[in-house]
Amino acid sequence: MATTTELMTELRAVSSELIELGRVSRLQGWDQETMMPPKGAVGRARQRAAVQGLLHERLTRPRIGEVLDALAEPPRRGELSQIDAAIVREVRREYDLAVKLPNAFVRELTQASAEGVEIWRRAREESRFVDFAPSLEHIVHLKQLEADYLGYADHPYDALLDLYEPGLTVATLTPLFTALRQSTVALLDRLRGSTVTPDRRLLTQDYDLATQWEIGLMLVRAIGFDLDAGRVDRTTHPFATGLGPGDVRLTTRQRRDNLAELVFGNLHEGGHGLYEQGLDPDLDGTIVGQYVSLGVHESQSRLWENFVGRDAPFWQFNLPRLQAAFPAQLAGVTVEQFVLAVNRVEPSLIRVEADEVTYNLHIILRYEIERRLIAREVRTRDLPDLWNELMREYLGLTPPDDRTGVLQDTHWAIGGIGYFPTYTLGNVYAAQLWSAIRRDLPNLDADLAAGQVAPLLDWLRERIHRPGRLYQPVELIERATGSPPDAAHLARYLDEKFSRLYALR
Amino acid sequence: MATTTELMTELRAVSSELIELGRVSRLQGWDQETMMPPKGAVGRARQRAAVQGLLHERLTRPRIGEVLDALAEPPRRGELSQIDAAIVREVRREYDLAVKLPNAFVRELTQASAEGVEIWRRAREESRFVDFAPSLEHIVHLKQLEADYLGYADHPYDALLDLYEPGLTVATLTPLFTALRQSTVALLDRLRGSTVTPDRRLLTQDYDLATQWEIGLMLVRAIGFDLDAGRVDRTTHPFATGLGPGDVRLTTRQRRDNLAELVFGNLHEGGHGLYEQGLDPDLDGTIVGQYVSLGVHESQSRLWENFVGRDAPFWQFNLPRLQAAFPAQLAGVTVEQFVLAVNRVEPSLIRVEADEVTYNLHIILRYEIERRLIAREVRTRDLPDLWNELMREYLGLTPPDDRTGVLQDTHWAIGGIGYFPTYTLGNVYAAQLWSAIRRDLPNLDADLAAGQVAPLLDWLRERIHRPGRLYQPVELIERATGSPPDAAHLARYLDEKFSRLYALR
Repeated sequence: MATTTELMTELRAVSSELIELGRVSRLQGWDQETMMPPKGAVGRARQRAAVQGLLHERLTRPRIGEVLDALAEPPRRGELSQIDAAIVREVRREYDLAVKLPNAFVRELTQASAEGVEIWRRAREESRFVDFAPSLEHIVHLKQLEADYLGYADHPYDALLDLYEPGLTVATLTPLFTALRQSTVALLDRLRGSTVTPDRRLLTQDYDLATQWEIGLMLVRAIGFDLDAGRVDRTTHPFATGLGPGDVRLTTRQRRDNLAELVFGNLHEGGHGLYEQGLDPDLDGTIVGQYVSLGVHESQSRLWENFVGRDAPFWQFNLPRLQAAFPAQLAGVTVEQFVLAVNRVEPSLIRVEADEVTYNLHIILRYEIERRLIAREVRTRDLPDLWNELMREYLGLTPPDDRTGVLQDTHWAIGGIGYFPTYTLGNVYAAQLWSAIRRDLPNLDADLAAGQVAPLLDWLRERIHRPGRLYQPVELIERATGSPPDAAHLARYLDEKFSRLYALR
Repeated sequence: MATTTELMTELRAVSSELIELGRVSRLQGWDQETMMPPKGAVGRARQRAAVQGLLHERLTRPRIGEVLDALAEPPRRGELSQIDAAIVREVRREYDLAVKLPNAFVRELTQASAEGVEIWRRAREESRFVDFAPSLEHIVHLKQLEADYLGYADHPYDALLDLYEPGLTVATLTPLFTALRQSTVALLDRLRGSTVTPDRRLLTQDYDLATQWEIGLMLVRAIGFDLDAGRVDRTTHPFATGLGPGDVRLTTRQRRDNLAELVFGNLHEGGHGLYEQGLDPDLDGTIVGQYVSLGVHESQSRLWENFVGRDAPFWQFNLPRLQAAFPAQLAGVTVEQFVLAVNRVEPSLIRVEADEVTYNLHIILRYEIERRLIAREVRTRDLPDLWNELMREYLGLTPPDDRTGVLQDTHWAIGGIGYFPTYTLGNVYAAQLWSAIRRDLPNLDADLAAGQVAPLLDWLRERIHRPGRLYQPVELIERATGSPPDAAHLARYLDEKFSRLYALR
């Protein structure tokens, strides 16, 4: 009979192999988006499938189930250190997810997603939802099946939410999103009465791309990103990916006619990158030394992009550096003008172009649709009407076509139903962290205005980055802030910030 | 009982997984040299070890041995297609190599090489062979053991040669290298009597790096390398690596004060790249759709670098393009002057800087040492004396220190004993191919002078690139040229070329 130590040694080896193979897979993905020559695509799909297949095969070995079962027995359970207990919990989670899904089902979903994204791409170009509808119907059906395979206590959508944000449920999200929607709609109403009209033209001049790039690197350095432990490259769709705390890769895009694209893209991805670089090196290579959830990850990108990056203190230090790089475009611009320009609130059709206030309404709309789709409360073919109805209700806009409406995002086509809510959850977490940070760091504004991010970064490192998966997301937020997740922080933050910027009351 | 078709399906899946994992490993290696941030090194070592460990574990499954044995039985053997028979042969080769080496031995060799390269690096810096000697002694001992594990009919060094060049033996190499050494020493003697003195100064002016880079890309395109199916990046030590015919990556280096570094580096790596891009797409993903040996690979790089790239026809077309990029440096230079400058023959101490004539003497010297080391005919501690003695005998030079003598190459430190001979074998193969090409393509010079490489490239594609591992190296050369490998082609080619350039007789 194996001892607890022996079993844990075995499980740690399993955990380590999963982590390293996961990083191999992420390197393949990063390279595909940034470096791979066009004719490499067919071969790369095979190479990635080989790694994915191996990961799945290794993860579903019956021996792993036996080791997990043995370690779950009461006498052993109590002998585990905090880290070992977390390793057992996280390997159990991955193992259960993997073994619950039959191989044939996984292949069908992979196939449907691969085809779905191509069909969606063409349908979006033609702006014809009907062309995508059958493919989406098939994907929704598979996701319903997936929820059944995975199991759930209350709502089938819970099973899908849990894939991206462990523990998240409809029962938590619906009241949270309802309250946030109501407060946001009320704030938008009040903003319509403001006489302040931000002028974005200072951002939309001619900005040399090479100079922009240097500014972009300066900004990620300015928030503490270590370019000896990471890099920044160009892609069509920006992302951040971690191959370990010593190798974190950001991607970004830039537009000659809009400086904001690169500046806030870099702050956003830089925020993701800081999380990855801040993971505990002592936990690196174990399943616990990884980011805990998409919602927490997004809280870090949003915190740097919006809470730090769209407020005055940060620009008191950094605007002069932008002005030195772009004197013709920015000379004479005040911090107040700049901050107002990057905070224009205006209901719009496209999620990825939305401002800090209206963004969450785009997410809540998608949540409402996804939840009803999975619960079979709405039919795929009715989506354009439902989309437009909710757009009118939340944002007061009607999309002129499917391209700028229901077809705008790729997530459903790739089977990512349940992913969208983590974006707004990130904002909710970020606002709550921000409240706690302002309480704990009374000199924060002065520090940021002096270019000192270390106190803020240290706060985040200790409470959010280093723990990895030692705690579940909700516990992590509670330990960091002193109270359980609560959307009221976000509502209050938005209300205060935009009341101030728009001179309300 | 499984049918032959079933067994082959199983073996093809094995072969495919080995190929894809091999490509994963090469992507990791390429990324490490070109893109990885410095702090990624520790994590990357773990990621690479995970892939290597998995490759070894997958390759040594007893089931693979059973399938290979079943397919080797006479009734089945005859049913196999040419491709399937080659797949069986090549998987058998990899399987036998893998299972013959105990895991503990592989780990010890990996460890000794990893340490060896660090010790060698420091010893070279200090120019103290004695510091490296114990480490080298251990590595040589392990390579002797490896030869015993792998087995050999005649000479223990045969087992190591076979790792890099299947089928190559001391019995073949010794007479071949002896004849080549004698003819080369004789040619060098005659060249000393020439009154022609090439002027290399036209290459060693100030050449802007960015313009050089564009020229470098122009040159790889000029020899037919497809930049939609590959890329070129910078590294300290140039190499080429293939992730499939659609994704071939070259690396190169450049010096502001020497144009030749980039020009001939790119032609050399470009030649390797053409081989990888020319592999049969229909065989891609099988073990047969890969390059057949290091010697054949080197024949392709040498053919483009030296046989094409250091002769007049290629530069009749391309020198004007260099002159357009660097008018101040190259205006008025004739093709004859340029070709003479890039063909200066002069015995020198450093292998990687050697010219086309003396290069092989550096290799033959290393071969003599390696063979005697593995056969226990010479002791590690005697290497500096032996090295210097052979340098005097072959090249008439005495290294002033270990750094420019016995310590100059990394190969022994990383356990690569048996690798060096493939460099000269590449020259031998290239010369024999060149004879056949000149016979088959009477318009070759005119084509090259007109910038047309297609006839030459098509010849190589059909006879060398596309077959992959369908034939063993010796058979491949014989099928391509009509006669078995013969070093006389190289001796004759060097004699004719340099007699002409140096106006002998």
